Amino acid sequence: MNLKGLSFIGPRRGQPTDKPFHAANPASGKGLEPPYHGATVEEAEEACALAGEAFRTFRRTTPAERAAFLRRIADEIEGIGDALPQRYVEESGLPAGRANGERGRTCGQLRMFAAALESDGWNRPLIEPAQPDREPLPKPDTRLRYIALGPVAVFGPANFPLAFTVAGGDTASALAAGCPVVVKAHSSHPGVSEMVGAAIRKAIDACGMHEGVFSLLFGSGSKIGPVLVNHPAVKAVGFTGSQSVGRSLFDLAAARPDPIPVFAEMSSINPVILFPGRLAEEADAIVDGLYGSVTLGVGQFCTNPGLVLLPEGAAADAFAEKLAAKLGAHDAAPMLNRGTCEGYDAGLERLAKTSGVETLLRPEPEHGPGGCHAAPALFRVGAADFLKADPLHEEVFGPVTLLVRCSDADTVRKVITAVSGQLTVSFHANASDVSANADLIADLETFAGRLVCNGFPTGVDVSASMVHGGPYPATTDSRFTSVGTRAIDRFLRPVCYQSFPPEALPPELRD
Amino acid sequence: MNLKGLSFIGPRRGQPTDKPFHAANPASGKGLEPPYHGATVEEAEEACALAGEAFRTFRRTTPAERAAFLRRIADEIEGIGDALPQRYVEESGLPAGRANGERGRTCGQLRMFAAALESDGWNRPLIEPAQPDREPLPKPDTRLRYIALGPVAVFGPANFPLAFTVAGGDTASALAAGCPVVVKAHSSHPGVSEMVGAAIRKAIDACGMHEGVFSLLFGSGSKIGPVLVNHPAVKAVGFTGSQSVGRSLFDLAAARPDPIPVFAEMSSINPVILFPGRLAEEADAIVDGLYGSVTLGVGQFCTNPGLVLLPEGAAADAFAEKLAAKLGAHDAAPMLNRGTCEGYDAGLERLAKTSGVETLLRPEPEHGPGGCHAAPALFRVGAADFLKADPLHEEVFGPVTLLVRCSDADTVRKVITAVSGQLTVSFHANASDVSANADLIADLETFAGRLVCNGFPTGVDVSASMVHGGPYPATTDSRFTSVGTRAIDRFLRPVCYQSFPPEALPPELRD
Repeated sequence: MNLKGLSFIGPRRGQPTDKPFHAANPASGKGLEPPYHGATVEEAEEACALAGEAFRTFRRTTPAERAAFLRRIADEIEGIGDALPQRYVEESGLPAGRANGERGRTCGQLRMFAAALESDGWNRPLIEPAQPDREPLPKPDTRLRYIALGPVAVFGPANFPLAFTVAGGDTASALAAGCPVVVKAHSSHPGVSEMVGAAIRKAIDACGMHEGVFSLLFGSGSKIGPVLVNHPAVKAVGFTGSQSVGRSLFDLAAARPDPIPVFAEMSSINPVILFPGRLAEEADAIVDGLYGSVTLGVGQFCTNPGLVLLPEGAAADAFAEKLAAKLGAHDAAPMLNRGTCEGYDAGLERLAKTSGVETLLRPEPEHGPGGCHAAPALFRVGAADFLKADPLHEEVFGPVTLLVRCSDADTVRKVITAVSGQLTVSFHANASDVSANADLIADLETFAGRLVCNGFPTGVDVSASMVHGGPYPATTDSRFTSVGTRAIDRFLRPVCYQSFPPEALPPELRD
Repeated sequence: MNLKGLSFIGPRRGQPTDKPFHAANPASGKGLEPPYHGATVEEAEEACALAGEAFRTFRRTTPAERAAFLRRIADEIEGIGDALPQRYVEESGLPAGRANGERGRTCGQLRMFAAALESDGWNRPLIEPAQPDREPLPKPDTRLRYIALGPVAVFGPANFPLAFTVAGGDTASALAAGCPVVVKAHSSHPGVSEMVGAAIRKAIDACGMHEGVFSLLFGSGSKIGPVLVNHPAVKAVGFTGSQSVGRSLFDLAAARPDPIPVFAEMSSINPVILFPGRLAEEADAIVDGLYGSVTLGVGQFCTNPGLVLLPEGAAADAFAEKLAAKLGAHDAAPMLNRGTCEGYDAGLERLAKTSGVETLLRPEPEHGPGGCHAAPALFRVGAADFLKADPLHEEVFGPVTLLVRCSDADTVRKVITAVSGQLTVSFHANASDVSANADLIADLETFAGRLVCNGFPTGVDVSASMVHGGPYPATTDSRFTSVGTRAIDRFLRPVCYQSFPPEALPPELRD
């Protein structure tokens, strides 16, 4: 595929600028061609205005038409062939298996929303016929369904070049709802983004959708982001990334003359609780599982387990030793970019220097030819010191976890309560643990959007019952999820049709 | 009932202050006993902290327990007997029939949510069993339900002393969800609020609910409001009232270290479109219906029709003449308080002095013994002048409507587009009108939360398919409704339970 390095402003391409940027291969440090030209403010505004125009027709396409469109996008992405995972590997430093897996997930998501549109429940239709004889007042005929909110601005993260960005979950759910999308591409993987953007443009042409249904903008988030969030045509925002950027977009949206909803998925340390009974029975399996979860994707998952609450005593100490050994034998691998790697170093330094924290494993800061390689780390602290030290409650993005010694269930509750809202809380428990800690386990749902028993938080299954969300700062609105079928709810609003003649009713609300 | 004039801080009463206030009868201007003592900041904080404590147990009560609690509240309200509508009439100036009707609606709402809790769908449970053989990855067992968000602060308006305040829709839906409630009572009707507050307290005792599940605070909104919205234990806000106050609470909530959702229902002028065919056939019936809707409750409904789009020409002029005559024969009646009446006067002045506006009916500003009486008014303007004059696009709270002459469907679309988000849009159309304006009618849903055909917007039916919501500034979040069963969605969030042992699953998610 011939990459041009230019934004997609609806059907046309953006203009070259005099200060383009290059993606870099984090494994080698080498720059990647072509140069990428950031969108101008005017181009970003044009993309939003086009989305507003497109909304007028796109919102009225049938669910079947949008389902066909989503499937066509998936087909076009698959049609790119090997060039896509090759570029993915070059831009992310992640292995080919991950690239292929994430492509499968992305296309699977698009097809999941297509299937959802063919089910009866996606827009929650409800018919309540008139009751002329109801006392004290007659009931009018009222019928309810949920409709598209309007154009959505999507901001993807560095860590999922496919599944959370250009054609990822935010875009797929917004398009499914009937909302045009303007994507701000992450500057770590512009090539993958351009390939997927071109696939969406092809699908638009093939399906006869309005040309403004999709735009893709390269360039600086601090320049383009506020333009998208403040544009009158934009009616919602989907964001995945850091807490500081997510919060700044949320603040902008809330300050608009007409505030718009922002679903920002931001920060989580995903506590894992090891109860003593299960730990005694399954220590080796838990070491293996935790090792895999901490190192997966070089620790760069939103659901990376950054905190492990374990008992005091010899069994837990032996567990820690085995885990340290296993993590210590793991090869360094490139993180997504230099900034991420530097953030990881700074995070390890913060952990290491906090009072009461023992360093069980800390790699030399040797970052390889691209300056991005990182190896796992492991720290340990007592609950009392943990509770005193706010810096320990914050996410360190990368392959590191902090063990917290907790003498009893009460202490576990205190530690969980001390950290803020989470995407996930996991716990390892046998039947006796479950029965001895029933009250605590029943309360875990107040801290997170997803609870995992005897498993690890990485590997978010994409399904109708998945929740990728949670109390702030995991997200800016815990009432929604960004993964799974119900991600569409973020971009829908209810409308009641009262006493409508059948011919004016939407098809799904006719008798 | 012996009114004490003191807040309910959970189970105890607030302290007397040295600057109490009295409610006034808007019909007579006479002050009403007893004096009411505003809650202190400390008392408001205590109420929030109690709600936070109560949440720990209340959120885990069964749906059946909460249903019994809601029904008991309804029974206790009915048990107050005639004293309640009597006080309602004294405090609001509204007639006894309205008082009784609103009591019925309030108790009906409580029972509707009780019934909803006994249905399967209220918290959207979904079970997706494991698929160990799924390719490329096994699917874990994942189960979804929606749980209570946390304590809710409720701010009621002056215009619904029962159905939108102490035990109104916000409180009923929050309690149904499992959220404790702290209500800031409106200072126009403290006596009705205290009676209903006492009924809720009785129901708490009778049902053995945690004592912090409900508090009721009297006093200044500008003092108490920020305390409630900023308190760490409070996790959501329900508000009905003016745009300025609603927006200020929204801004406070968005600026918290952990932003919380605010559903504020604020401002709407509820356009009514009269298409020519239907107008020719049914002019007299539309005059009668519009007259009733404009004057209902002295025009003090959120859904009051403040804008009527009608054709140009003789038929429309005759319609306007008949409507003016009918409204002109309507007796003045007391508005809710002096401030509301003064706002109405100022609004009429704003309409009358705007360029191009014809005054068809404007009452003398003779406000009776309480300074609150107001009579209907009617104005007319051409679409071109309307489109130029922003002040005409804003709500005038009271029994007034503005006729806008629109030469064709395109002009109707321009006028509807010029006004901001609405709770409702109504249209009167016969079969030919519907067919000639199919495109416009299909787009009306983009402007409002509820569309009404051949009817009027006042009289919001309380049912599962009702929507009382809409784009800003009708509300601060168009994705929700404050009336009807789905009002509960505002106070729920999804949680996924992955690979849970049956004994740790919530009952509704067991096989």
